[in-house]
Amino acid sequence: MKIIAVDAMGGDHAPQAIVEGVNRAIAEFKDIEIQLYGDEAKIKQYLTATERVSIIHTDEKINSDDEPAKAIRRKKNASMVLAAKSVKDGQAHAVLSAGNTGALLAAGLFVVGRIKGVDRPGLLSTLPTGDGNGFDMLDLGANAENTAKHLHQYAILGSFYAKHVRGISSPRIGLLNNGTESSKGDPLRKEVYELLSADESLNFVGNVEARELLNGVADVVVTDGFTGNAVLKSIEGTALSIMGQLKSAIQSGGLKAKIGAFFLKDNLYSLKGSLDYSSAGGAVLFGLKAPVIKAHGSSDATAIYYTIKQIKKMLDTDVVAKSVAAFTEE
Amino acid sequence: MKIIAVDAMGGDHAPQAIVEGVNRAIAEFKDIEIQLYGDEAKIKQYLTATERVSIIHTDEKINSDDEPAKAIRRKKNASMVLAAKSVKDGQAHAVLSAGNTGALLAAGLFVVGRIKGVDRPGLLSTLPTGDGNGFDMLDLGANAENTAKHLHQYAILGSFYAKHVRGISSPRIGLLNNGTESSKGDPLRKEVYELLSADESLNFVGNVEARELLNGVADVVVTDGFTGNAVLKSIEGTALSIMGQLKSAIQSGGLKAKIGAFFLKDNLYSLKGSLDYSSAGGAVLFGLKAPVIKAHGSSDATAIYYTIKQIKKMLDTDVVAKSVAAFTEE
Repeated sequence: MKIIAVDAMGGDHAPQAIVEGVNRAIAEFKDIEIQLYGDEAKIKQYLTATERVSIIHTDEKINSDDEPAKAIRRKKNASMVLAAKSVKDGQAHAVLSAGNTGALLAAGLFVVGRIKGVDRPGLLSTLPTGDGNGFDMLDLGANAENTAKHLHQYAILGSFYAKHVRGISSPRIGLLNNGTESSKGDPLRKEVYELLSADESLNFVGNVEARELLNGVADVVVTDGFTGNAVLKSIEGTALSIMGQLKSAIQSGGLKAKIGAFFLKDNLYSLKGSLDYSSAGGAVLFGLKAPVIKAHGSSDATAIYYTIKQIKKMLDTDVVAKSVAAFTEE
Repeated sequence: MKIIAVDAMGGDHAPQAIVEGVNRAIAEFKDIEIQLYGDEAKIKQYLTATERVSIIHTDEKINSDDEPAKAIRRKKNASMVLAAKSVKDGQAHAVLSAGNTGALLAAGLFVVGRIKGVDRPGLLSTLPTGDGNGFDMLDLGANAENTAKHLHQYAILGSFYAKHVRGISSPRIGLLNNGTESSKGDPLRKEVYELLSADESLNFVGNVEARELLNGVADVVVTDGFTGNAVLKSIEGTALSIMGQLKSAIQSGGLKAKIGAFFLKDNLYSLKGSLDYSSAGGAVLFGLKAPVIKAHGSSDATAIYYTIKQIKKMLDTDVVAKSVAAFTEE
C-alpha cells in the first residue's frame, strides 16, 4: 500500500478541488491510501471516499502570501507542514500540495530532506509538445542560482525521471543554450557542456534553443533555476495571451465569427487541451528523499487526480530510491 | 538627407525582398537616400527606384553559417562589412542587414564602434502586446553574460528609445525577475534593482515576471543577454507552435472544421497579424555610434520597408546622438 500525504488546504479551490480529486483517485487506484491534512469539517463536506482515506485535523494553514521559510518555521501545525512531517516520520511515502510554492520547497528541503549527494534539488515538470510526447525540464525555479555541478545532477535526475516515470528507454538530454553549437553560451553553459559530454551514463544530445522546446528536441532539458523560471513563464504567458486574443477576436467578431467558432468548437477545445497542463501532473521537487509534488495553485479536481496518478507512478517505479542509489554509488 | 547603408545580400530572400522593400521606402520617404551593397546585376533585377538610391557593387558576402568574428576580419569586401564601413567613414548614417546576426553584431562593435561610456551594446526589439502598444526589451542576446552596470545602461538606453522613437513620455522600466517582490532574484538582479531604484532619471516600476510581459506590464524590460535570448525564443516558439497546431487541427478536422475556419478567417488573420513582428521593425544593436539594425532573416519586402521606417525615425529623432550626450555627461 502506497501512502500519500495530501495538504487539503492549499490552492485556489481548496479544499473542494483537492478532496474531489482524492475521491476519484481512491476509486480508481486500489493500492493507494490517502492522508488528508486540514480542516476536518470542511474536508468532510466533499469527501465521498470511504476506504483507504483518513483525515488529520488541523486549524492552521499556510497562505499564498506567507513568507515561505518563516511560515514553515512558525506554523508548525500547518496542513502542509504536518503532511511533510508524516513523510519524514515514515508515516507516508509522498507529499502533495497545491499551496504556496516557496513554502512547499522549504518544507521539502528542511522537513523531508535532500538525497545525500544532491546539492540543490530542482523543480521538474513535464511540459507539452506539439507531438503529444512532452518533455521534462528542470530547474524551473527552485533555485535563483546554480553551478555547473547542479546542472549535471539535474541531467542525471531528469534522465531517471524520464526513464522510470515516463518509460523512455534512453532519454535524450539537452542543455538549454543561446545557440546549438558546442561553443555557445556563458562560462556556466560551457562548463556544463563538458560535464554532460564526459558522462557516459547520459544520452546527451547537445545544446537546444528555447525556440525548439515545444517541437520535442529533447526528452529532458536542463537549465539553471533563473532561466528555467523565465522560460516556463514565457511559454505560459504567450499561450494564455494568444488564447485570450483568439477568444476576444471571436467575441467581438459578430455573427460570422460566432458561426465559425461554433463549427470549429471541437478543434479549439482540442487545441486548448493540448496546451492544458492539468493532465500532465504537478511539478516535482526532485532530489529529495521522497516525492514532494506541487500541483498548480489553480488546480481543479481533474488536475489533482492526475497529480495523484503521477505520484503513484513515481512510487510504483521507485524512482526516488533508484536516484538515491545512483548518487550514493558515486 | 538621411543616408542608410543597406546590405542587399543578407537574409533568406535577398536580394529580392531587400530591394523591393527599398523601392517602397524610397517612394514613401522623400528625405532618405539608400546605398545598396551587393551584386549589382542581381540588385538591378528588382530595383525600380530611380532617385536617391545607389548601388555599390561587391561579389563578396557573409553567409548565415560563417563564424561571425572571423567573417568580419577575413571578408573585408563583404556587402555587410562595406555597409558598416560607410557609416564609420561618415558616408552613411545607419546600417541595415537581414544577414548573419553574429557577424552584424561584430561589424557594429568593431567597425561602427561603441558609444563612449556604454560597455556592452545590447540588442533591443519592440515586441507585441495584447493591447497593441508593445514593449521594448534588451539585451536579447548580443551578450552571453552581463554585469549589473550593463543592465543599468540598458535601462537608460531603453528609456531613450521608448521616449524618442516610440513617443512615450515617461517610459516605465521593468527588471525581468523570478518574482515581483523587491527581494527576488539572484545577486545580479538584486544589484540591478538597487541601481535602478537609485537612478532618479528612470521611471523604474520594479520587477516584472515573464508571464506578464505580453500584458504590457512595462514599456521597457531589461535583462541579461542570456535570459533575454531564452525569453524571446520561448515567446516565438510558443506562438509558432500554437498557430501550427491550430492550422493542423483545422486541416485534419474535416468539413465542419473547414466551414468554421472559413467563417473565422478574418479573426484568425487578425490574430496572426497581432503576433506578426514584421511591422514592428528590426532589432537594434543599441549603444553604438550609429543605428545598426538587424532585420529578421526571413524578412519579406514589407518587413524591410518597416525596418527602414524605424531607422528613419531613429535618425529623425536623433536618438543615438541624445544617448551619446547622456553617457558623456556622466
